[in-house]
Amino acid sequence: MSQEADSECEVYSLDRSWKGPCEIVPQWEDYCWTFGGCKARWEIEPGVPVSLFTEDCFGGRVRSAAHLPSKVVQYPYLNPQTGPFFVKGAEPGDSIAVHFVSIAPARDWAVSCTVPLYGALVGTSATAMLHDALPELTWVYRVNRQDGLVSVRGLRSPWTVSLPLAPFHGTVGVAPPAGEVRSSIVPDMFGGNMDTPEVCAGSTVYLGVNVPGALLSLGDGHYAMGEGEACGSAVEGAMVTTIVVEVIKGHYCEWPRIESDEAVMVAGSARPLEDAYRVAHAELIKWLVETLRFDRLDVLQVLSQCAKSRIANVVDPNYTIVAKMPKYVLPSDVSFMGGAHDHLSALAVRAMTREA
Amino acid sequence: MSQEADSECEVYSLDRSWKGPCEIVPQWEDYCWTFGGCKARWEIEPGVPVSLFTEDCFGGRVRSAAHLPSKVVQYPYLNPQTGPFFVKGAEPGDSIAVHFVSIAPARDWAVSCTVPLYGALVGTSATAMLHDALPELTWVYRVNRQDGLVSVRGLRSPWTVSLPLAPFHGTVGVAPPAGEVRSSIVPDMFGGNMDTPEVCAGSTVYLGVNVPGALLSLGDGHYAMGEGEACGSAVEGAMVTTIVVEVIKGHYCEWPRIESDEAVMVAGSARPLEDAYRVAHAELIKWLVETLRFDRLDVLQVLSQCAKSRIANVVDPNYTIVAKMPKYVLPSDVSFMGGAHDHLSALAVRAMTREA
Amino acid sequence: MSQEADSECEVYSLDRSWKGPCEIVPQWEDYCWTFGGCKARWEIEPGVPVSLFTEDCFGGRVRSAAHLPSKVVQYPYLNPQTGPFFVKGAEPGDSIAVHFVSIAPARDWAVSCTVPLYGALVGTSATAMLHDALPELTWVYRVNRQDGLVSVRGLRSPWTVSLPLAPFHGTVGVAPPAGEVRSSIVPDMFGGNMDTPEVCAGSTVYLGVNVPGALLSLGDGHYAMGEGEACGSAVEGAMVTTIVVEVIKGHYCEWPRIESDEAVMVAGSARPLEDAYRVAHAELIKWLVETLRFDRLDVLQVLSQCAKSRIANVVDPNYTIVAKMPKYVLPSDVSFMGGAHDHLSALAVRAMTREA
Amino acid sequence: MSQEADSECEVYSLDRSWKGPCEIVPQWEDYCWTFGGCKARWEIEPGVPVSLFTEDCFGGRVRSAAHLPSKVVQYPYLNPQTGPFFVKGAEPGDSIAVHFVSIAPARDWAVSCTVPLYGALVGTSATAMLHDALPELTWVYRVNRQDGLVSVRGLRSPWTVSLPLAPFHGTVGVAPPAGEVRSSIVPDMFGGNMDTPEVCAGSTVYLGVNVPGALLSLGDGHYAMGEGEACGSAVEGAMVTTIVVEVIKGHYCEWPRIESDEAVMVAGSARPLEDAYRVAHAELIKWLVETLRFDRLDVLQVLSQCAKSRIANVVDPNYTIVAKMPKYVLPSDVSFMGGAHDHLSALAVRAMTREA
Repeated sequence: MSQEADSECEVYSLDRSWKGPCEIVPQWEDYCWTFGGCKARWEIEPGVPVSLFTEDCFGGRVRSAAHLPSKVVQYPYLNPQTGPFFVKGAEPGDSIAVHFVSIAPARDWAVSCTVPLYGALVGTSATAMLHDALPELTWVYRVNRQDGLVSVRGLRSPWTVSLPLAPFHGTVGVAPPAGEVRSSIVPDMFGGNMDTPEVCAGSTVYLGVNVPGALLSLGDGHYAMGEGEACGSAVEGAMVTTIVVEVIKGHYCEWPRIESDEAVMVAGSARPLEDAYRVAHAELIKWLVETLRFDRLDVLQVLSQCAKSRIANVVDPNYTIVAKMPKYVLPSDVSFMGGAHDHLSALAVRAMTREA
Repeated sequence: MSQEADSECEVYSLDRSWKGPCEIVPQWEDYCWTFGGCKARWEIEPGVPVSLFTEDCFGGRVRSAAHLPSKVVQYPYLNPQTGPFFVKGAEPGDSIAVHFVSIAPARDWAVSCTVPLYGALVGTSATAMLHDALPELTWVYRVNRQDGLVSVRGLRSPWTVSLPLAPFHGTVGVAPPAGEVRSSIVPDMFGGNMDTPEVCAGSTVYLGVNVPGALLSLGDGHYAMGEGEACGSAVEGAMVTTIVVEVIKGHYCEWPRIESDEAVMVAGSARPLEDAYRVAHAELIKWLVETLRFDRLDVLQVLSQCAKSRIANVVDPNYTIVAKMPKYVLPSDVSFMGGAHDHLSALAVRAMTREA
Repeated sequence: MSQEADSECEVYSLDRSWKGPCEIVPQWEDYCWTFGGCKARWEIEPGVPVSLFTEDCFGGRVRSAAHLPSKVVQYPYLNPQTGPFFVKGAEPGDSIAVHFVSIAPARDWAVSCTVPLYGALVGTSATAMLHDALPELTWVYRVNRQDGLVSVRGLRSPWTVSLPLAPFHGTVGVAPPAGEVRSSIVPDMFGGNMDTPEVCAGSTVYLGVNVPGALLSLGDGHYAMGEGEACGSAVEGAMVTTIVVEVIKGHYCEWPRIESDEAVMVAGSARPLEDAYRVAHAELIKWLVETLRFDRLDVLQVLSQCAKSRIANVVDPNYTIVAKMPKYVLPSDVSFMGGAHDHLSALAVRAMTREA
Repeated sequence: MSQEADSECEVYSLDRSWKGPCEIVPQWEDYCWTFGGCKARWEIEPGVPVSLFTEDCFGGRVRSAAHLPSKVVQYPYLNPQTGPFFVKGAEPGDSIAVHFVSIAPARDWAVSCTVPLYGALVGTSATAMLHDALPELTWVYRVNRQDGLVSVRGLRSPWTVSLPLAPFHGTVGVAPPAGEVRSSIVPDMFGGNMDTPEVCAGSTVYLGVNVPGALLSLGDGHYAMGEGEACGSAVEGAMVTTIVVEVIKGHYCEWPRIESDEAVMVAGSARPLEDAYRVAHAELIKWLVETLRFDRLDVLQVLSQCAKSRIANVVDPNYTIVAKMPKYVLPSDVSFMGGAHDHLSALAVRAMTREA
């Protein structure tokens, strides 16, 4: 109980616990807090892997049980993005394929908080209620990289929990269409704060390009997260991540598509939550029909019997659901988005082999 | 294309393909089409397994690609329930634990349909649109019990798909509170048409008792289903199912709870879909707090990082989401609902051993 | 009941303050708490006005600032309905037209309350939140019939407010389709707890008949109400009401339709609130197209520019919106539902003239 | 553009039919298509009325029944805004009061259209459906300024309709917070495309200032509109409008507030529609409590019995509802936002008197 404001609370360090090569390590003034609206800070060459550091969603300012977001973080400086990257050759009307070669915790600690007016089970600025906010609390997690675990102790209960480490990026996106600039808290057609565990090592994210160079950025590392992110934050931590990018000329994805070795997916972001479901599934059907040239109703039928529909977040300004079609039901010779996932996966394997 | 009304379409048989003991096989006039509103037809003795037959959601009337629900099924005769069962000793204020010992396809075929004004991606009677309905179509699935597969051919595409057989009951419920009688299409606090794959062999469903004997009924067998049941129907088929029941005196569950060997769950049913998420997660937190006596915010925190939130349906009059807390994060000595799941699982093992 | 009353809080009387003819005054055991599920208690002869008494939504149990619903009302005994009435000649597939000749407060007081887990701006059983409930409070209103006002004093503020008396019935409905029985708290296709001020003297409500005699009932008098009923209750009071009914053979309304001298309306009840909007407007377009035989898109266009869309409630198990098309844009010779509103209005005038 | 026109369809002129003084008439390249993201084009001196021209939402490109938006309008060039205006003295943390002195149709015609993927009763990019779009159609309205009417003929029905002219601005807003730039199609905390008829002559709109000079802009004139804008467009027309502005130092409105002689209002914009209702009413309660210093629950009670809740739009990326508290229930000496509405109304009367 006393932990909330205890001067004896340990304050954790911003140093990287696990040193290793990382080409791009932003300074504070390098971070971008929006999608769109920032000048390109770095350039990406298609086919060339790049390793980069991302700060946690609180900008590293919450590093003790005594640190409360409403006290130490100054709105709107939430969710710093590493980027934007100017992707060479990317033009409006193209898509980029962003393959995640590796995503690794940069520190041996992470945090999660209850934040006033944020979360799926409390009144928020949109689901406005007359209730007072719940208490604001910070839980500090310790990472055990050997065992692949993150652990936390209850603040008010005799309870210690260890969860499998399952790192992913809550946020990846490009400059939005129509000249918009969006907060890095928002997920939408341009990607952004989708908070889906499908953005993990081994996956490829496809994003439609709206401005020259696409202006890709990413951040919001999560060491673990339950589906929906009920309390409003995941196990939030800094990451060292390697990506490799390809440009798919003349093929524009309206909504973010994701491909893994086992599945093709679309991330729909909207409110109410059924509209996120609708976008994700209707766009996945559209993608399958355009690729397989099968009848739309046959695709609907098969998807209805075997798709997974993973709730990503029920807390952001738009909610996100990922519709996921397993590849084992598809013709074996089919390839998506010009085969970018396969190219980039092969590249990734070569890069990692070279490294080792 | 011509399949839709082809006189040459094979019409499948209503016989049980896989014969075997089944104590309760309703006649047509035995079925109940509502939760509440039917007199008890059979009695269940707590602790004594009972095997029963359930008809598919179309009452077995759709058994060919040429059979369309709007032609062969007469509203409201959809989703026949086997029951109600009077559970001996169950009184208002108690809960019953319904353990599913086994759920097996009763036939070697099943069907799925697009139905006008039903489905997640079309206008419906509640999400009223000015569009014309999509074409009504019926897909017939064949069951291969040896390999554990169901297979279907595209109606308009050269596509044959095999999916893992994953049988469960779309519907299980009791008479509702407050004297209501609800269509067997509806999921709500009394259970009903939740359409969650978590109602499978090995799981225990807890339901609060509102009337003497609880008046349990079940049906709507699914041989397989994607999350959300996008087109409005799963792979719909008749089942032979064995259940065993326990009465938990003086402990009333407001919302359906589910327990498996690996997890505890709550099924929330509401619209919009985020409200189903809210009910499921808030009630799961309530259940965990009442059982573990941990602080509510600590429980929220851990649930936020490791719960699964499985979309059951986005098509019924209420949508359903199941919040699922893995048991591995809980103290090892904790037991839920008086340990009913453990008792009934042990009973089930004994029953099945005896049988074999 | 009076034991809960603060000795200094005045407890109001259940007597009718304004005596006058009222043919049907139910005893406590006469009330029905559901739509469907009650046997017919009285008979209605089409064309013959009948005057009846309706109790308030709390069954008259809240009659002092010291009376709190959670203490004095026993769930589910909320929202007592006067009825059901067996309407002679009404058969499934017909509709009944219920014309409200007069609706007058029966008492010189009324109440409104904040109720835990009810209301548009608080967590509820469906919009489940982790917040504690707001305080439960009761405000007593005084009626000034001469000036046509209801008045209330702030409980915690130096504020006295007088509002125009605007009596209507929150609830009017018939037995639901498909054998359902629904709590009198619920609005849906059968009418029920729509909470729309359009159900006022001078209006005609059309309801599709699902069972022989329709089984009409009504209640939940409101002396005044803001749009949406934000706190969960209106100015709740007993009524003396005169209705006159007509049977429209072979013309079934799926959703409740309302007609006044100035407008035709449909009440859509659903969640989320945009679905209530969709039902109301799509069904109003359907009604106009079926009556006027104009093109659907022309009707959509005109409705888009002149319809009113009145929020009725945002608190009941379904939310209700009433779409309202002014008659002045319609051909002058058009008549709806066989002219029932005109016949019944004329009858009402004659009845009231005779009375005076 | 005219090539798309059917030779028999009259193409209307972009000239102003009603000439008169108008200080600010933008050229095409002057228009701004976003809130935020445009440099200030003009300056506004507080207290000095300014008259300005606004183009219609289609940029004047739809001016015949043969002109279809999808053909003649190039996305994202929809909803041109006149502005931004740099309001002298406005700093972040202040609010501006924008009083509408007069709003008059600039032309004797206007248009309305059905647009693919837009509207409350069709599938859209967020409420994604598998249906094909409805036909795209354009209706041309004629204005009769003498009689105060707009008239339209059915395209496919023998139906001519005249509606009262009721001009207002669908759009008024400032640069958003947090460095965002939003499409002029979007309503949110910064105002924008609220589509509420309450933004009419005689009203004052209060908007929180996020950047120096506020960067006010406005447009999207509607000659008339039904509640909700069901088909996706109102009677869209160019306007000549006079506004006068005041800066309220150190008093920041989070959401748009509106004041008229009869009422105080808040416009909430969110999805689902009940969240727009929640924002509007919770923020109106907050405003009343902060101004009147009455208890929050007393304010909730009175608002629940007399507020109007006007649906503005159910078609934009956020839906909008306006909560409206009548002034007659408030203490007579109360004044809101420093009395800005009263000052500006007085100024407006003087300005108009001088003019006449």
